[in-house]
Amino acid sequence: MTNMNRRVFFLASGGLSLSPFVPQNTTNSVVANDVTRRLARYVVSAKFADLPGPVRKEAARTLLNWVGCTVGGSRHETVGIAVSALAPFSGPAQASILGRRERFDIMNAALINGISSHVLDYDDTHSHNIIHPGGPVISAILALSEHRPVSGQDFVTALVAGVDVECRIGNSVYPKHYDVGWHITGTAGVFGAAAASGKLLGLSEQQMLWAIGLAATQPVGLQEMFGSMTKSFHPGRAAQNGLTAALLASKNFTSSEQSLEAKYGWLNVVSTAHNYGDITNRLGESFEISRNTYKPFACGVVMHPTIDGCIQLRNQHKLAPDAIDRVELKVHPLVMQLTSKKSPQTGLEGKFSIYHAASIALVEGAGGIDQFSDRAVRDRVITSLRDRVTTVIDSAVHEDQVRIVLTTKNGDRFEKFVEHAVGSLDHPMSDNDLENKFKGLANDVLPPDRHRKLMDLCWTIESLKEASAVASAAIA
Amino acid sequence: MTNMNRRVFFLASGGLSLSPFVPQNTTNSVVANDVTRRLARYVVSAKFADLPGPVRKEAARTLLNWVGCTVGGSRHETVGIAVSALAPFSGPAQASILGRRERFDIMNAALINGISSHVLDYDDTHSHNIIHPGGPVISAILALSEHRPVSGQDFVTALVAGVDVECRIGNSVYPKHYDVGWHITGTAGVFGAAAASGKLLGLSEQQMLWAIGLAATQPVGLQEMFGSMTKSFHPGRAAQNGLTAALLASKNFTSSEQSLEAKYGWLNVVSTAHNYGDITNRLGESFEISRNTYKPFACGVVMHPTIDGCIQLRNQHKLAPDAIDRVELKVHPLVMQLTSKKSPQTGLEGKFSIYHAASIALVEGAGGIDQFSDRAVRDRVITSLRDRVTTVIDSAVHEDQVRIVLTTKNGDRFEKFVEHAVGSLDHPMSDNDLENKFKGLANDVLPPDRHRKLMDLCWTIESLKEASAVASAAIA
Repeated sequence: MTNMNRRVFFLASGGLSLSPFVPQNTTNSVVANDVTRRLARYVVSAKFADLPGPVRKEAARTLLNWVGCTVGGSRHETVGIAVSALAPFSGPAQASILGRRERFDIMNAALINGISSHVLDYDDTHSHNIIHPGGPVISAILALSEHRPVSGQDFVTALVAGVDVECRIGNSVYPKHYDVGWHITGTAGVFGAAAASGKLLGLSEQQMLWAIGLAATQPVGLQEMFGSMTKSFHPGRAAQNGLTAALLASKNFTSSEQSLEAKYGWLNVVSTAHNYGDITNRLGESFEISRNTYKPFACGVVMHPTIDGCIQLRNQHKLAPDAIDRVELKVHPLVMQLTSKKSPQTGLEGKFSIYHAASIALVEGAGGIDQFSDRAVRDRVITSLRDRVTTVIDSAVHEDQVRIVLTTKNGDRFEKFVEHAVGSLDHPMSDNDLENKFKGLANDVLPPDRHRKLMDLCWTIESLKEASAVASAAIA
Repeated sequence: MTNMNRRVFFLASGGLSLSPFVPQNTTNSVVANDVTRRLARYVVSAKFADLPGPVRKEAARTLLNWVGCTVGGSRHETVGIAVSALAPFSGPAQASILGRRERFDIMNAALINGISSHVLDYDDTHSHNIIHPGGPVISAILALSEHRPVSGQDFVTALVAGVDVECRIGNSVYPKHYDVGWHITGTAGVFGAAAASGKLLGLSEQQMLWAIGLAATQPVGLQEMFGSMTKSFHPGRAAQNGLTAALLASKNFTSSEQSLEAKYGWLNVVSTAHNYGDITNRLGESFEISRNTYKPFACGVVMHPTIDGCIQLRNQHKLAPDAIDRVELKVHPLVMQLTSKKSPQTGLEGKFSIYHAASIALVEGAGGIDQFSDRAVRDRVITSLRDRVTTVIDSAVHEDQVRIVLTTKNGDRFEKFVEHAVGSLDHPMSDNDLENKFKGLANDVLPPDRHRKLMDLCWTIESLKEASAVASAAIA
């Protein structure tokens, strides 16, 4: 086929795309011209009454976990810097900064709350694509709910649809998109924020297509930023960009109508492979929020099996740090891609060190905020044991697993295989676990008598007349 | 080499990168660990006194052309929609929206002015990497200059450094980054806006590294958006993102220090090849702004040779549209990648149709704003001739060239080879051409007595006590 013939062929297929060449990066041979449109149509037509009970329950769990993490993260230095840098430029005091007293315009509030939600790396994680679904979506729609009345039912509907959009798009490119070096929570999250915000704004199908297009053109987040303040900027900016996309589209700011599947659309540009079916199959029947999980430890999920297993070994064998000679971890390659920092210097860097993770679990029997602080990464007992941890990459070990071999100075050898870490989909956090996590996070920020009220607002979100009550109850 | 050995090797190289694997996408084998730092150091240490006279003159030309385009674009429907969508969320009235009466906070002003500057596709174009350098950089720093006093000399220094940063990074990945599907003005432009804003904010080298990191993580722009309002959103959002990056960095919001060259940094993630030397060679000796060009026609530069050649043919042979039987264009592949729309339906889509370009040049003998309006793409004489234009891709024809073969109904055959179109670096717009273009753009927006004053402020920018005088003189 000559170039000219290819061009004619492609234009004849009805696409808006500009290229004379056929796509080369697809894993499936079907060229779907209506992927973006089907997704937009699903969001526009989504109804609360169609949501199964367990889906609605998971939305409440996602919200409660997001509120706890956002309140808990709100006093972090990262958030304080962002607030002070942006305050001079903020618009009217339209929306709350959770856990604080400042009020910003909804765009800036979405950004700041998104940063707070992720800065402790303690938030939620989709069990398949490792997106943190709550951050981009809830940060956007809770701010929007403070600007215009939104019922609890509409809030839940938008939340479920937004999580579906970001996670379905994420599924379609995972893991290849991640392997390129993108931080998928920011790059896919912007779609969730745009869709959920657009749902609350009542966008038409045409406008929703444009909102998705405006989201597609604003991906946020390189993995290179992990370990710095910029990592938590990603879900915040994704929330803000998605909200901006929906607001512009609501005024008929035009964009592409095939922003996902076009030759120079998002899927081809940001990934080396994609699967359309992950986006469109069983829309409205299968809900991605059902696959959300909540972190029991304040770091990325790939370190959770190691922390879980090391805590178990410590408790079972009553191991003191100086009794341990060495620890070997057999892990999936992704674990080393993400968390291979040998000598973290800050608490944020500690979240990307599998060596630190094993050490704090064995030394302190925990993996909370305090174990990923500047104090912890400099503690001599912890750094000493950290230096006796080694890793072996083993593709036979799954991403959510670990095989730990611990040798004591006495020559004892203990082995632990963690098949499903605590907090995973197969071993989920109970409602009670989530409440305890919430209380721990809110403890230093909100008075204790507010914890119960705020949690109850989250549990009963779908019965609230105004969803913004959640935000009002979460300010300092 | 085993995976483990590779990991140790890579960490031993001193990088902050997280990956166990060595980079595979470089075109040069040297792994430079200090690319980002050298660029940051150049910006921080740049001095007005070190700028050669011709470089300062080109900065004034770039500014004058940007002001004209921004004022001229300010009444476009695209800008009106963005203003109305964002006004409810804007902060204090800190900065001007050129050509209009609204005043927004500097972040939103940077966004809107950036949209205005590009919406007519009539702005500037770097002769090598086809970035529109003025949009991201000037939209950011002119807004910032209204918020804090900035001398004309400092403004010029920041402008030159910002253009250097965005264009050097652009050069390092051009054309491979463009071939992936990115709109390089948005993706590289954000670096220019961050660097120039950071220069005016007086960032330290450390802070400039963070500003570049925050820019790297916010690339804007897919080519799929060409032909919609979202295309002009790209330089606007790049300006806003870069300004945000610099302001956050000024408060010590941390980021990567190797955001360009790291394994999961910008160069590897958004391009299939890159050349470090394009970024670091002759910094402070060779200035990219010297390679800027200014459009004589209101569309992308790849269509300029065709418009230029068709106008020449029309005038030389006094051709009436209905005397023309057919027109054949031999063009570089990039022309068809970008401008192959056969039947544009809006003025914005007309800017991406080489067929429309040939037709309007032959029918109306011009390629201005009016030839890329909704009126023009629906004009029957123009659409009729458009349908008699065909294209042939010929790699022997350069991007900035065209070979036109026109056949009349009488059987006459006229041929025109355009080696360098008017407005190109080899055939540049004179100062007088720029003034005439400016007046045409400002004509319907500002009273004629203001044109001379505004142009003189641009020509004398380096002698101004406050650069913001340019903005004050450009509001409606």
